[in-house]
Amino acid sequence: MRYVTHLECIVCKRRYPPDPDKYLCTCGGLLEVAYDYLRLSREWDRMSLAHSADYSMWRYRPLLPVRGDIRPPLRVGWTPLYQCPRLAEDLGLKDSLWLKDDGLNPTGSLKDRASALAVAKAREAGASTIACSSTGNAASSLAGNVASLGGGMQAVIFVPKRAPQGKLAQLLIFGAKVISVQGNYREAYELSAAAIQRWGWYNRNAAINPYLVEGKKTAVLELAEQLHWQMPDWLVLTVGDGCTMAGAGKALRDLWSIGFIDKVPRLIGVQAAGCAPIYRAWARGEQLIPADENTLADSIAVGVPRNPDKALAAVRDTQGVMVTVEDAEILEAMKLLGRSSGVFAEPASAAGVAGLKRLVAQGTVAPWHTVALISTGNGLKDTANALKAAGQALKIEPDLDKLAAYLEGETP
Amino acid sequence: MRYVTHLECIVCKRRYPPDPDKYLCTCGGLLEVAYDYLRLSREWDRMSLAHSADYSMWRYRPLLPVRGDIRPPLRVGWTPLYQCPRLAEDLGLKDSLWLKDDGLNPTGSLKDRASALAVAKAREAGASTIACSSTGNAASSLAGNVASLGGGMQAVIFVPKRAPQGKLAQLLIFGAKVISVQGNYREAYELSAAAIQRWGWYNRNAAINPYLVEGKKTAVLELAEQLHWQMPDWLVLTVGDGCTMAGAGKALRDLWSIGFIDKVPRLIGVQAAGCAPIYRAWARGEQLIPADENTLADSIAVGVPRNPDKALAAVRDTQGVMVTVEDAEILEAMKLLGRSSGVFAEPASAAGVAGLKRLVAQGTVAPWHTVALISTGNGLKDTANALKAAGQALKIEPDLDKLAAYLEGETP
Repeated sequence: MRYVTHLECIVCKRRYPPDPDKYLCTCGGLLEVAYDYLRLSREWDRMSLAHSADYSMWRYRPLLPVRGDIRPPLRVGWTPLYQCPRLAEDLGLKDSLWLKDDGLNPTGSLKDRASALAVAKAREAGASTIACSSTGNAASSLAGNVASLGGGMQAVIFVPKRAPQGKLAQLLIFGAKVISVQGNYREAYELSAAAIQRWGWYNRNAAINPYLVEGKKTAVLELAEQLHWQMPDWLVLTVGDGCTMAGAGKALRDLWSIGFIDKVPRLIGVQAAGCAPIYRAWARGEQLIPADENTLADSIAVGVPRNPDKALAAVRDTQGVMVTVEDAEILEAMKLLGRSSGVFAEPASAAGVAGLKRLVAQGTVAPWHTVALISTGNGLKDTANALKAAGQALKIEPDLDKLAAYLEGETP
Repeated sequence: MRYVTHLECIVCKRRYPPDPDKYLCTCGGLLEVAYDYLRLSREWDRMSLAHSADYSMWRYRPLLPVRGDIRPPLRVGWTPLYQCPRLAEDLGLKDSLWLKDDGLNPTGSLKDRASALAVAKAREAGASTIACSSTGNAASSLAGNVASLGGGMQAVIFVPKRAPQGKLAQLLIFGAKVISVQGNYREAYELSAAAIQRWGWYNRNAAINPYLVEGKKTAVLELAEQLHWQMPDWLVLTVGDGCTMAGAGKALRDLWSIGFIDKVPRLIGVQAAGCAPIYRAWARGEQLIPADENTLADSIAVGVPRNPDKALAAVRDTQGVMVTVEDAEILEAMKLLGRSSGVFAEPASAAGVAGLKRLVAQGTVAPWHTVALISTGNGLKDTANALKAAGQALKIEPDLDKLAAYLEGETP
């Protein structure tokens, strides 16, 4: 907290002390964590960071709103960054394409970054119960991080009826109290909000809690450091609630303000065509209108996103763009990514590849542009949809001659 | 390859030059990679290793049998090591218990270490096709590592007819040629062996190919370095075909021989009671007898293990022990591990926790002993069994009063 000055409302600019359980402005606006950039840039630099032996999200502590050293033991962050020349070629790009595989976080998604921070803040607030509503990844990351910290803390998770079995299994193994709300995400969210209010639990809903965006931003802080602070022309993220995009915007503002980067990539926000309320607000310049949730990319199927303002500001401030993709393109992108790069991404992550493909095809992203993508979730979280994408195995009798006939017929 | 001197048969001690595609001795015995330990210990030390910025399995290159810098791009290794005080307490241990989560490798298992090495050796051998017969972790790690390397290399995977669709999905996403042999596992294995022979493909079979154990051993090299070379009293691994245990034994021998460690932990090998041929050979001091495969821990359900000799030698040479566990204990251990430590392990990994629990209960492992476990596979690989272990979510209508009735009824 050394460099945190205050919380500030993004609407009315009112300021608040940075209390761990302060969520919204009295005007209803979202709050944002403000840092003393001047002091930060005098007391911290890229060189001292380079000497840090902490290969986790906590290496960016001067830019994180945490006190003391309360942190869950799981090793969150410092996920690998891969250069993907064959994927670039497949998409029609001539220059560098980078992919950061955040599906290799401890519970399999970028959400571990927000949850680790939430658990640290809950402990700071003296809370013994921490709750969220989630389509899955936020939930499993919260459950895992709470389990790793121990100390009697309990995670209470509200999930919509459609949450995939893999994600539920994880929650239950981690010992969370799992409440399967027999309805959609909106209903799960509303029940969680009411319960948090009623029982005074710590709120790990990323849109409301201003600290969580600070956890999410570490994905982009890392990306920048792994690229030796040479930012690409574009940075691609998929958008559900909007908090990951908000985190990216915050990371870029922080890094620019303290002089760690001298170029800000344009942000690309990808939504599924079957659930694109933020895209529509961006495209039409209008207020957000709730949408249905008709996509297999469950992690970004958010009909009533709670954080459109920060996400839209991030896209607009960077002269970014938004785009939608059909489910068929998402499945195709899963295959494309797996084959070209050895990364197995869940549909909501592969949507980023599909969106980039569209933008290259339509000329928004030029072949000579450099691009980075963040894959936010592990494909093992949703093998049912992977199977739809993957195609079929070759069925053959246990007979070498039959195999030979097939292989030689196929590859003359 | 700088420090590799030769390959040596573990049965007749005959020596061979370390060619990348040399598999077995003419006597049929397994080969082992030999290093010039004297030169290694003169030219390499723990301090120079500590300065390496390569946080992957390749940081141990002086102890790896690879030439040049051919390696698949996926970041394999340097998985996190956690101290688990609450798990220790649950098991009745008073001192340190460490868990290394190898399920956080790129395709979700320790097998990535062997596959990355196999792909490097295949490239060295000039092979463009690399094959194995498996439905599980070996297959997906091979497919993923091949996809990441590109360069026209093709993975060919032989699976039996019964291979579950979910597992095929990952292989197909990675673009492997998946051959579904319309027969049982033995027929799939035999067809793969015949095909490898006929077309001269590179053989990624961990028991046959002496280099793969060298990849697997990096899990223990890392563990030792992460523990600052202070080895625990016991090191727990689960045993299927025996190659991971063989790798552990090799790592300890290497580290001892070059003076990096001055204590060798006793190895604990855990098998599922429903498929325990290596345990039986160990307990009775007899030759191995094939077993049925009656356990839900599919990754260690190997009725005819191909590498019992190296595994048994590793356990015996370290004054280790073996133990079996029932499926019910494995499911219970998945839950115990998840709740106490935030690590989601597949059944074959959780079996290690179950085995340790047994050995503490029966007094073989004393409360004041220090122990390390390696969790070899990610729980997301097998969510069906996780659900059996975890229980069910609470299903509730989106209604706060109904939730209150439940919560208040539950916690008066």
